[in-house]
Amino acid sequence: MIQKLISKIQKTGAPIVVGLDPMLNYIPEHIQKKAFGEFGETLEGAAEAVWQYNKAIVDAVYDLIPAVKPQIAMYEQFGVEGVKAFKKTVDYCKSKDLVVIGDVKRGDIGSTSAAYAVGHLGKVQVGSQTYAGFDEDFATVNPYLGSDGVKPFMEVCRQEKKGLFILVKTSNPSSGEFQDRLIDGRPLYELVGEQVARWGEECMGDSYSYVGAVVGATYPEQGKVLRKIMPKAYILVPGYGAQGGQGKDLVHFFNEDGLGAIVNSSRGIIAAYKQEKYGKFGPEHFAEASRAAVEDMAADIRQALENR
Amino acid sequence: MIQKLISKIQKTGAPIVVGLDPMLNYIPEHIQKKAFGEFGETLEGAAEAVWQYNKAIVDAVYDLIPAVKPQIAMYEQFGVEGVKAFKKTVDYCKSKDLVVIGDVKRGDIGSTSAAYAVGHLGKVQVGSQTYAGFDEDFATVNPYLGSDGVKPFMEVCRQEKKGLFILVKTSNPSSGEFQDRLIDGRPLYELVGEQVARWGEECMGDSYSYVGAVVGATYPEQGKVLRKIMPKAYILVPGYGAQGGQGKDLVHFFNEDGLGAIVNSSRGIIAAYKQEKYGKFGPEHFAEASRAAVEDMAADIRQALENR
Repeated sequence: MIQKLISKIQKTGAPIVVGLDPMLNYIPEHIQKKAFGEFGETLEGAAEAVWQYNKAIVDAVYDLIPAVKPQIAMYEQFGVEGVKAFKKTVDYCKSKDLVVIGDVKRGDIGSTSAAYAVGHLGKVQVGSQTYAGFDEDFATVNPYLGSDGVKPFMEVCRQEKKGLFILVKTSNPSSGEFQDRLIDGRPLYELVGEQVARWGEECMGDSYSYVGAVVGATYPEQGKVLRKIMPKAYILVPGYGAQGGQGKDLVHFFNEDGLGAIVNSSRGIIAAYKQEKYGKFGPEHFAEASRAAVEDMAADIRQALENR
Repeated sequence: MIQKLISKIQKTGAPIVVGLDPMLNYIPEHIQKKAFGEFGETLEGAAEAVWQYNKAIVDAVYDLIPAVKPQIAMYEQFGVEGVKAFKKTVDYCKSKDLVVIGDVKRGDIGSTSAAYAVGHLGKVQVGSQTYAGFDEDFATVNPYLGSDGVKPFMEVCRQEKKGLFILVKTSNPSSGEFQDRLIDGRPLYELVGEQVARWGEECMGDSYSYVGAVVGATYPEQGKVLRKIMPKAYILVPGYGAQGGQGKDLVHFFNEDGLGAIVNSSRGIIAAYKQEKYGKFGPEHFAEASRAAVEDMAADIRQALENR
């Protein structure tokens, strides 16, 4: 799957992943109205609105991008109905040949991580049959529990040719509270990065590992160091756009081969129509605004990489 | 909710939480057979088997215990159908007046943690209506992202009078890989414990905070230190039984008032019928075996606390 991700990045020329993180207040009124008309102001109605919103955005941008990253929290907030919309979104994106990164940030003790890995990336045995539960292509994983929380995911990835992005240095303002604490003179995130590199060696694709890392665009200096510590890891970079990251901050997340990083934008793409810059599209044409925002983001990153 | 948990612990005399972490291979054949007969060897069939298994165990033990802890990974492995069984289990346990600890180990950047908090503990706005998605009483939270990953959970807990257990020192063998690394001469888990104590001060019940901690029974020495660092935090202690923890290891997790800790057992209770000790019950009477295992566990802990 890392090979598929890389070849799609090369084909589109856009190392971009669109974060499908729908909040109800991003969704234009006409979509909400239609969904509520059909299902009432219920969890089912909300899930239908989310799904129609996602579908329209995916239809508008799928040819420009290699991957999407649905954030499962935004679906879990609507309970079981929301989780159904998550699954529907995953399936639809795969039908459009997009690589699907399930932003689930799971991680637990061994046997429990194994269950998560099976549910999100693998297949579960039921009697004589096997089934894929959610069936994303990649999942994000929290490393706080150490190797035996991560290795069950690696095992399923080996079987299914799927991949992981391990949280190393997250994009949020307080990420330094624990991640930056110095251990033998070096921040915790560097030690996690070194461990990601070691895990990654056990899971190599052709040129990159299918064990990648999450490093926030909001921390470009740290990204530069981590790029060197994990030369074979693909870096998933959140925090572009709404969280403050810009194209020029991103160059050090990439390797000299122009590969090695994929940049996420969520709100900046899916709610682009709410920005002044894309205001001319209006809520009716929100999906076209998303397409324009993807094109602008791709150009911004391309230019930053050319100028480095 | 922390008050309810404490008063139920006092009433039952059992600081015990039963981990409802069903694996299909724990579930007696007659239950699987019936579920597969009705729904086929499908995800729906598996979810039905899980639900019937849980229900029988809850019916057999609910009067002996204050709380249950369904591990959502074990449900997510069966995809959407599994998540439905999770919700059914949560609702059923609440109808039996059990405190439900959702073992979800969520944690993300601020706005995303807020969505998880709303989905698992709070209420989501849909048009003019509000709905509870999963509606557990407590949730477990991963602290790797720092305060802005945890505070949105605290906020929802304040509104809903619910609670949290933050991962501090986990029960698994490799938990030390990052958690034990020394920062200014002290292990990371102590710094996380100090932060839990600070977060907890903002969320006090009568005598204990509704921000608690997870510390594994497998690390009794660390538990002793953490008990002092977080005097007002309830400690959720996994790792009893199948993972190797024993009653005598647990005493230091409790305060002098005999409160302050609640010990989880999952496999040791729900699959008790598979142990030689409870073999006489047989698979047909698995729920009675679970009841006997709860009684033995409560006695083991009671005795350990009396002997300290």
